[in-house]
Amino acid sequence: MKAEIIAVGSELLTPDRMDTNSLFLTAQLNRLGIEVTRKTVASDDFNSLRDAFAGAMDRVELIIASGGLGPTEDDRTREAVADLLGRKLTRSDAVMGAIEERFRRLGRAMSEKNARQAMVPEGATVLENARGTAPGLWLETGGRIVILLPGPPHELKAMFSAQVESRIARLSTGVRLVARELRVAGMGESDVDQRIAPIYTRHSNVQTTILAAPGEIQIHLRTWTSDVPAAEQLLQQIQESIVLALGESVFTVAGESMEEVVARELTLHHATIATAESCTGGLLAERLTRISGSSAYFLGGVVSYSNALKSAWVDVPAEIIETRGAVSAEVAVALADGIRRRTGATLGVGITGVAGPTGGTPEKPVGTVHVAIADASGSKERGVSYPGERDRIRWQASQTALDLVRRYFLYAAQPKPGAKG
Amino acid sequence: MKAEIIAVGSELLTPDRMDTNSLFLTAQLNRLGIEVTRKTVASDDFNSLRDAFAGAMDRVELIIASGGLGPTEDDRTREAVADLLGRKLTRSDAVMGAIEERFRRLGRAMSEKNARQAMVPEGATVLENARGTAPGLWLETGGRIVILLPGPPHELKAMFSAQVESRIARLSTGVRLVARELRVAGMGESDVDQRIAPIYTRHSNVQTTILAAPGEIQIHLRTWTSDVPAAEQLLQQIQESIVLALGESVFTVAGESMEEVVARELTLHHATIATAESCTGGLLAERLTRISGSSAYFLGGVVSYSNALKSAWVDVPAEIIETRGAVSAEVAVALADGIRRRTGATLGVGITGVAGPTGGTPEKPVGTVHVAIADASGSKERGVSYPGERDRIRWQASQTALDLVRRYFLYAAQPKPGAKG
Repeated sequence: MKAEIIAVGSELLTPDRMDTNSLFLTAQLNRLGIEVTRKTVASDDFNSLRDAFAGAMDRVELIIASGGLGPTEDDRTREAVADLLGRKLTRSDAVMGAIEERFRRLGRAMSEKNARQAMVPEGATVLENARGTAPGLWLETGGRIVILLPGPPHELKAMFSAQVESRIARLSTGVRLVARELRVAGMGESDVDQRIAPIYTRHSNVQTTILAAPGEIQIHLRTWTSDVPAAEQLLQQIQESIVLALGESVFTVAGESMEEVVARELTLHHATIATAESCTGGLLAERLTRISGSSAYFLGGVVSYSNALKSAWVDVPAEIIETRGAVSAEVAVALADGIRRRTGATLGVGITGVAGPTGGTPEKPVGTVHVAIADASGSKERGVSYPGERDRIRWQASQTALDLVRRYFLYAAQPKPGAKG
Repeated sequence: MKAEIIAVGSELLTPDRMDTNSLFLTAQLNRLGIEVTRKTVASDDFNSLRDAFAGAMDRVELIIASGGLGPTEDDRTREAVADLLGRKLTRSDAVMGAIEERFRRLGRAMSEKNARQAMVPEGATVLENARGTAPGLWLETGGRIVILLPGPPHELKAMFSAQVESRIARLSTGVRLVARELRVAGMGESDVDQRIAPIYTRHSNVQTTILAAPGEIQIHLRTWTSDVPAAEQLLQQIQESIVLALGESVFTVAGESMEEVVARELTLHHATIATAESCTGGLLAERLTRISGSSAYFLGGVVSYSNALKSAWVDVPAEIIETRGAVSAEVAVALADGIRRRTGATLGVGITGVAGPTGGTPEKPVGTVHVAIADASGSKERGVSYPGERDRIRWQASQTALDLVRRYFLYAAQPKPGAKG
């Protein structure tokens, strides 16, 4: 079965706001074996809306729309769809009662306008809204299903999970999407593609997409199937071949973020970590502490922007800063080792660099970054040069630091004599 | 003039990727006086693509598409549009030469496939691609203009600015968009709406949108006009009325981020700042250092996750932690004052709280946060309770901290006797 998603709302046609509901809806529909073949963002204009629904109904069996169910005169999704399907709108006493009850519970006066939300097209199934006043609607007509959901994401998600998912599952044809996501750090997109193209081009029934995100390359494998076990086995086999081709640059085969992977390794090895950052300004600590439960392994960190604080807080010798410069391999190592000693953590991480756009020199241009990790027995440093803007340079520097930590545990767990770091 | 935007690419119909080019294109078109009335994400399928362009050409005079101009067989935008317009595709020697030249310059071998990118529909104007191999195309037919741009954002943006913008400006009808964006911190969406509805409802020719983002409410004022000075004056007047109604909760009338506003205040007042964070894990320091040139005012920060480091790094007395708890007003003030003393900054900021999802207690549930600022003469503390998930709680805590800093300078600049803090 194929579906289209329509996001309704003139505010979604400005530079300031975008439709994100469709990502959630696509993930849910894919899981139910339904492919999304088009997405439309339509304005609140009645004729434009009606035209958007008419087009979608010409093309697919399932149309899911979000937004335009509110109480104001701008909210015209109900009217446009009812008009298109030739259904009368009548006031539902049950819906009206539910809206009144909600306002009573919140102790607020109901506005006249909210009565509009009780208008239901003939023959429609009302989908109760546990988190707001606008009910959803489920309409069937000539082999087509049209589902209207409220725009606010928390209302839409709750309604989909509680009332739409099981209804759609019942219609399901048995075709399912089987997908994997591998992520790679420390390699470029074309390099990844060159190494794995011989693998994925052998499987034309598996859709392979390679996406470049800051600091990582994502490899998506997707296949639609009615034989899930066979598809799982095929993807497993492709996944193993890719891991063989790319080696330890693959940091997840389950679509995890780098910080999730690092959090797991730290936990598994009962290790603790502390950070000393300069150009990343706290981003590394912030990423490490995004993970719930991070207080088990993250002891603390410093952002030592000034040279004086690099010495005062993590004992970076002033003469190293003077002779090698604040952005140098030596300072990165001193930061990593200093924060480790100060906190007693298993691992210390240090980052120093030029995030730009100012501050670059001919020897150390914008994008020059040094990252180091240190444990009780030594340190490892990596000097890199990133292209791009300030935020991208900072992100990539934090990614390289996390990747150094990940690779550290790779060897801690499975020592390989003679392997390159 | 009205426009539609078509984003081409099956990967944009998965849960993993979304079209962001349309935000840039919308901003540019709006500036040129062109309203975007629909956005479509279409798959790479030939018929589906052709149908998407046909629909758009029925509705508007200007269609801008991104993507599907690459060298692979999946890239079919050229063919679909040529077929729809009844134009033959012929190989352009000029384009072929440019592609060959690019590969020579990069020292790489050109693939056979790249020859596809030299295919140009009859009568089309070729738009040179300074940053990639896929040229753009400008087609005119029966009063309609179709512009095809490459998908990679840095290629699309460069091509639009260099070659599309001036061409579109020449077609312009003189109608322009005049817009303002105000942002508000420390108030809820419905509270903002209630106070300003009497203002904006008086001006039906100005489109007002109120959007809730984490930690702030955004008020967008937009109006299409052929008399820009009059519209500017009207928006100025509405803006002033809104600022009067909402007071100092308005932190920008120019769509700036909170960290940009705080950076400006710190710079204006020649002040320096340092941070001591617990639950936000470095997010506050990271936001302060997003701004280029932040080393002028940001001295440094600590992320003291453990209680021991709160005492060792910023001298929070252990007995305060013991008697009041790590999450308390007293500890927030001690963090702020301690980091100020340790760094010699004008202002110290402290944050402590329970970001969740675990760690909450009946007295201090998830979402409980204490934020404080301190200068040489005293401190100010704010205890808050945020709803939502870990990342939202952390963001709102950092926003409240930045807002405290902003309000500090509000009074520093314009002392108002008896004003409430």
